[in-house]
Amino acid sequence: MMQKETRTYMADLASHVGEEVLVQGWVDTRRDQGKLVFFDFRDMTGYVQGVVLPGAAAHEISAKIRTEWVVEVTGKVNRRPEKNVQSGKQNGDIELEILSIAVLNEADTVPFDVTGDGRDINEDVRMKYRYLDLRRPRLQRNIRERDRIISFFRDYMHKHRFVEIETPILMKGTPEGSREYIVPSRLERGKFYALPQSPQQFKQLCMVAGFERYFQIARCMRDEDLRGDRQPEFTQLDFEMSFVKQEDILSFTEPMFIEMVKTLYPEKHFTETPFPRITFRESMEKYGSDKPDLRKDKSDPNELAFAWIVDFPMFEKDDEGNIQAAHHPFCSIKEEDEEKFMKGEDLFNVRANSYDLVLNGFELSSGSIRIHKADMQKKVFEYLQINEETQRRKFGHMLDAFKYGAPPHGGFAPGIDRVVMLMMNEPNIREVIPFPKNGEGKDLMMGSPSEADERQLKELGLELKKQTNK
Amino acid sequence: MMQKETRTYMADLASHVGEEVLVQGWVDTRRDQGKLVFFDFRDMTGYVQGVVLPGAAAHEISAKIRTEWVVEVTGKVNRRPEKNVQSGKQNGDIELEILSIAVLNEADTVPFDVTGDGRDINEDVRMKYRYLDLRRPRLQRNIRERDRIISFFRDYMHKHRFVEIETPILMKGTPEGSREYIVPSRLERGKFYALPQSPQQFKQLCMVAGFERYFQIARCMRDEDLRGDRQPEFTQLDFEMSFVKQEDILSFTEPMFIEMVKTLYPEKHFTETPFPRITFRESMEKYGSDKPDLRKDKSDPNELAFAWIVDFPMFEKDDEGNIQAAHHPFCSIKEEDEEKFMKGEDLFNVRANSYDLVLNGFELSSGSIRIHKADMQKKVFEYLQINEETQRRKFGHMLDAFKYGAPPHGGFAPGIDRVVMLMMNEPNIREVIPFPKNGEGKDLMMGSPSEADERQLKELGLELKKQTNK
Repeated sequence: MMQKETRTYMADLASHVGEEVLVQGWVDTRRDQGKLVFFDFRDMTGYVQGVVLPGAAAHEISAKIRTEWVVEVTGKVNRRPEKNVQSGKQNGDIELEILSIAVLNEADTVPFDVTGDGRDINEDVRMKYRYLDLRRPRLQRNIRERDRIISFFRDYMHKHRFVEIETPILMKGTPEGSREYIVPSRLERGKFYALPQSPQQFKQLCMVAGFERYFQIARCMRDEDLRGDRQPEFTQLDFEMSFVKQEDILSFTEPMFIEMVKTLYPEKHFTETPFPRITFRESMEKYGSDKPDLRKDKSDPNELAFAWIVDFPMFEKDDEGNIQAAHHPFCSIKEEDEEKFMKGEDLFNVRANSYDLVLNGFELSSGSIRIHKADMQKKVFEYLQINEETQRRKFGHMLDAFKYGAPPHGGFAPGIDRVVMLMMNEPNIREVIPFPKNGEGKDLMMGSPSEADERQLKELGLELKKQTNK
Repeated sequence: MMQKETRTYMADLASHVGEEVLVQGWVDTRRDQGKLVFFDFRDMTGYVQGVVLPGAAAHEISAKIRTEWVVEVTGKVNRRPEKNVQSGKQNGDIELEILSIAVLNEADTVPFDVTGDGRDINEDVRMKYRYLDLRRPRLQRNIRERDRIISFFRDYMHKHRFVEIETPILMKGTPEGSREYIVPSRLERGKFYALPQSPQQFKQLCMVAGFERYFQIARCMRDEDLRGDRQPEFTQLDFEMSFVKQEDILSFTEPMFIEMVKTLYPEKHFTETPFPRITFRESMEKYGSDKPDLRKDKSDPNELAFAWIVDFPMFEKDDEGNIQAAHHPFCSIKEEDEEKFMKGEDLFNVRANSYDLVLNGFELSSGSIRIHKADMQKKVFEYLQINEETQRRKFGHMLDAFKYGAPPHGGFAPGIDRVVMLMMNEPNIREVIPFPKNGEGKDLMMGSPSEADERQLKELGLELKKQTNK
């Protein structure tokens, strides 16, 4: 089937004018004009128009072939006559004179058109047939650009002496932060792993371990109610540095984003550089939001308004009025507020060394300089009303780690999905995630979540409670 | 604390002879000779020896400082006198004349020495304090080399037009293959996600989506009994290609491994290139194993005996004598055996287009050319006694996808943990995984798995069964 020596990708056809080539791919469109049959063929590198001339050997089979069939085509690459050149279109100046077509696989009529941008198609239907939806040029581009953006960040981190370290997916539950997914253990019945909401604790432990510059393109899972544009799983460029202050993180991150945009999306421009720095309080007072949209022209798809929001409060009140960590309990306290903090006075006005990066009204990233001393960490837990026993049980490893020579450290975690969404001018992150879930956390293509086998539950020592109305 | 302008890494000190520098890091060793106090300091780039001369300002503090304390040191970089040069040691020809030491964090006495290779330390203790264990040079090197190996593969794939695509961690359960971890859904009580045993189905769906060349450094989770050197989670270089035959996968993969070794580990040599190709049957007959160790000199740490094992059977019998897929149900059948297969005759002698890569007696990777037509796929399910209803329920999306123009495709999935283990000459994969679990699937550092909160179980609609003896 494959003749490795001879396959030519669509993107490379232009350099084979006058030659006979073999291409493989899909039938993108078909126009039967009686004597002439025109096809557009598609492979991962692009498109080419092919034509079956009157009396050609391929005429009979070309009558049968439909869109989305998988074919192997031999043909001669001809330059098009001047009047037929479609400038600005890939291979618009050449045409394949089709000599033979072999059908590698047929295709039923697809449930929707895959050549357009899909904006007019019901999203549930797109999701159910995601493997077809991904064929459209818009999604092919989004997914490939996602890889380019991630690759840019990876290279940048490596160039700056960071090491990528994989941290576990099966980790330990913690009572802090968002709700987490749990995974029942079979070997220890009645116990559970948790999926990471982020590698927060592991990256701090990497600092204790002396890696100094850690990063990871990290998968995070949060069992939140999926209002708005959330997904149960998302990806972040997670990083952490030792021997740094807040200023070091900001002045490392800012040029990384500027270089990413300049390298990959030179058509875009910045509203302001250096990125403005606004305190949380200023931002709330002036914009009524901690993620203000600072673009000057909201209709310009190439305008990027980055801004730093700094000096977030350390604590906030939850829905029931109880104290909780505004970001997470590992943030360190601003030097100016340390005295208040130590005395436990006016806690809701104590500021943390924490910072966000916002872009066009979206929060791109959150970070902080961490506590690296056990006594400070215990004090935060105390204010959060986590008692000694719970501290030991849930965070004993962190408190221990801080006793054995933890360096000063801090980090950041830009959200990849949002970065890609904003670079691609997409309205939501589902358009830049290969296999997203819908607003109810369902995968409509595979049909998950789904029932477990009785055997599985039995092995795990679990029973489903009878469904009752809440 | 940090003076960004002036920090010098240990690895860069040699170019600062005669200058005053600031270094940051850990006290690796300390030798108090009364008048002179010697330190070895350590950062992420290496080591340097420092000395506090008689009468130096740092004398008082140097008496207090112990190993593993975190310090910031200013000093003058001096060339050592000829007789004190330690050649072959990093910075063995220079010495830091210490002017001042600031303590950034103290350290309790560590539970074990972190300067040696740790081979004599109880593994459970190493795991409990993994954040200290990782400080030892052996593990620092393993984790950093792991990143280099993965980076090599990533670059290689990108250079060959592959696109990295992230597939979901929360996916759908399937009855095939190993036992999977399941994750209870809160939004759909009584239903479950499954963690991927591998991205097998997603990568095939990426082929249907027209990506043609997919790869991913993929996290896989299997709830197996952890005999031997297994881990509940592991990492593979997962890839898939369209319009290929078995020969294409083999002749793409072999040069990738050869180039990886030649580039990163030029001290190593191959027992035989091209890698020998052995059929499953030959291998079992000649070596009694499908992963023969073909090294000529088992005591040579630099010998690499790669080999291909091909023509695996499609089916095998499970422990109870029932038919099951030897690899997985998506493998295609060898052309020569298709007739037997279609007739359902002599099924245990029907061979698949499947192949393994073995190295020094370890299976590094498994792969196959897949079925890409719905009727063939249904036939396999039928032989595996998966009835029509279960086929639809569990694999409906695959059977549907194959109807809409699936290209011929196949793939491979080298195990990263084993590759790194073998390159590093480590005895097991736990030495090359940053935060591994022990033989019972426990994380001894964090203490997972652990009890879930009552509230969590309630939200998930789950009840723990009373523990009874099996």
